[in-house]
Amino acid sequence: MSDLTVGVVREETPGERRVALVPGAVSRLPTGVVVQSGAGAGAWFDDDAYAQAGARLASRAEVLATADVIVCVHPPEDALRAGQALVGLLQPQRRPDAVAAWAAAGVTAISLDRLPRTLSRAQAMDALTSQASVAGYKAALVAATAYGGFFPLLTTAAGTIRPAGVLVLGTGVAGLQAIGTARRLGAVVSAYDVRPQARGEVESLGARFVDLPGAASGSGDGGYARALTEEEGRAQQAALAEHIARADVVITTAQVPGGRPPVLVTEDTVKLMRAGAVVVDLAAGPLGGNVAGSVPDTTVVTDNGVTVIGAGNLPATMAPAASTAYSRNITAVLAHLVRDGALSLDLTDEITSALVVTHDGVTHDGGAR
Amino acid sequence: MSDLTVGVVREETPGERRVALVPGAVSRLPTGVVVQSGAGAGAWFDDDAYAQAGARLASRAEVLATADVIVCVHPPEDALRAGQALVGLLQPQRRPDAVAAWAAAGVTAISLDRLPRTLSRAQAMDALTSQASVAGYKAALVAATAYGGFFPLLTTAAGTIRPAGVLVLGTGVAGLQAIGTARRLGAVVSAYDVRPQARGEVESLGARFVDLPGAASGSGDGGYARALTEEEGRAQQAALAEHIARADVVITTAQVPGGRPPVLVTEDTVKLMRAGAVVVDLAAGPLGGNVAGSVPDTTVVTDNGVTVIGAGNLPATMAPAASTAYSRNITAVLAHLVRDGALSLDLTDEITSALVVTHDGVTHDGGAR
Repeated sequence: MSDLTVGVVREETPGERRVALVPGAVSRLPTGVVVQSGAGAGAWFDDDAYAQAGARLASRAEVLATADVIVCVHPPEDALRAGQALVGLLQPQRRPDAVAAWAAAGVTAISLDRLPRTLSRAQAMDALTSQASVAGYKAALVAATAYGGFFPLLTTAAGTIRPAGVLVLGTGVAGLQAIGTARRLGAVVSAYDVRPQARGEVESLGARFVDLPGAASGSGDGGYARALTEEEGRAQQAALAEHIARADVVITTAQVPGGRPPVLVTEDTVKLMRAGAVVVDLAAGPLGGNVAGSVPDTTVVTDNGVTVIGAGNLPATMAPAASTAYSRNITAVLAHLVRDGALSLDLTDEITSALVVTHDGVTHDGGAR
Repeated sequence: MSDLTVGVVREETPGERRVALVPGAVSRLPTGVVVQSGAGAGAWFDDDAYAQAGARLASRAEVLATADVIVCVHPPEDALRAGQALVGLLQPQRRPDAVAAWAAAGVTAISLDRLPRTLSRAQAMDALTSQASVAGYKAALVAATAYGGFFPLLTTAAGTIRPAGVLVLGTGVAGLQAIGTARRLGAVVSAYDVRPQARGEVESLGARFVDLPGAASGSGDGGYARALTEEEGRAQQAALAEHIARADVVITTAQVPGGRPPVLVTEDTVKLMRAGAVVVDLAAGPLGGNVAGSVPDTTVVTDNGVTVIGAGNLPATMAPAASTAYSRNITAVLAHLVRDGALSLDLTDEITSALVVTHDGVTHDGGAR
């Protein structure tokens, strides 16, 4: 046990129920742990569970005052002190003011969304993957629950019921998990991704890969999709329209790192869909979404009877599972960064240099992404 | 085509979105069909679809005035005329006043919930089965959506996530469909039924049958469960408690025909459950439910963090699929009852005599159940 203390604060973002460290992860840390009372309540982890795992319970002010490293999902707005470290999904590119404040205060800010995701030794730290996996699973459930038909083919005394046709757009981690879950439920699934190399993963899950003869290929850096040009985007929308119109359920998950999500389903395309069809837009967020007009945490039924669900923060709706997975990522990051009882930042290490946003008053741009 | 006209009215029960006859079933009837404008809207079937299928659209008053046979899910409150027939899930045992009124008015009331369900030639008419199948499937989805963990076992870079443990109480049609759906999603499922002969069906779906050494066997007539005595019921509750306490998700579906559903999960048992556990009570209704204190269409989170969902009318939440299946049942009933273009009630036929509630001013008690 080192002298280092890791602190867990309660998430204050509206609707957020996750906690950065679950009781089961406390003993896996080579440090002391101090937890804000009630921090785990949204994910059904009570204070007793933390105490039994060896953590100390304290007020928020005390956690912020005594912890050397604060772990979080979203960064707290509290002022932190020089030398203190903050580890979480900090989304530095969306928070230039917060980054400047951390640098000015001498805070070491470490952001898991800057992890180089193609490095196999970084996989255990990959919080974007673990949370996208939760979101993709839940998106398929949300779609199945909103849809008025069965996903599976059923044979009954009064006849056979055909399975639902589900189309998944964007086959990153969330899209693949949505495909897998819809397949588990027995739907006939097809999927499209702008990266042609996604075909193999889609087919291995028992789904059909949709070919768009006229559309551009969009492979980008680090296995991500690149942003298409405006013209390429319009050609893609047009080519997708007939596939979307035929689907009972569409789940969209297309993201471009740090950018605005591409519109894959236009207003005109929604008008081509059948009454009773369901669209779940997992990319819905403050910057827009994959579906024209979708709004996070909002369900709209169009004039032609299509239910459009802006998915919002799905990992928060599965806070126990999402927090448990996230804790494992946090634990792996701390195992990577803590040496001999102290935070030791080797900025020549590819992972460490990518993760560090601010340190010793300096802002790093995270070259790995 | 006969001179007989079948009429479809819009369901007026609050929250009901089903329709008794979908457009796809219109051409399967050997009769004319007149449909109240908007009758299918709740299930996403528009007037045009009925018109294209050959039905005539009309006002409610006109449907009631011109139809020889009114088909419905729940019986309408409108006054019907002598000689007119009403076919639906009339629940005559819960509506003695309505039955008396139909008899007095000379209405022929035919109730699908009186079908002798063990007769194989009656299976295509079995609306209780088709609707319970929808309810069981949806109950598993509702449970999975409310639960904060994954149903399947997942192996990730950061470790393995254990599958959810789902316990299904009552393994009639709805229970078996809930088991099947939870299994599809990858949960570890166990199930209990008071009828020992249910074991084979449960095990064939890949679930474990729960043995309760101290509890009484409760096989009743027609494959149904019988009501236990008060003492037997208490022994059953006590024996179930430890199984319920260990489950992540409990889905209850136990019904006793025409009677009050048995309480399987007491208030004390809910207190034994883990925070984050989910209970879906499919039997929740005006007469009570399988879970102490459950209320239809209401979700309660207990002090110890258990989410108790009173399921209410789940088939209405899958109105397209439920209506399509129900239409097939209605069509089969009419095929059985219509001869040479007229309703022909052979009261010596086992099915017909069971279905007829009132005819020619006489009330029949439906001996088959």
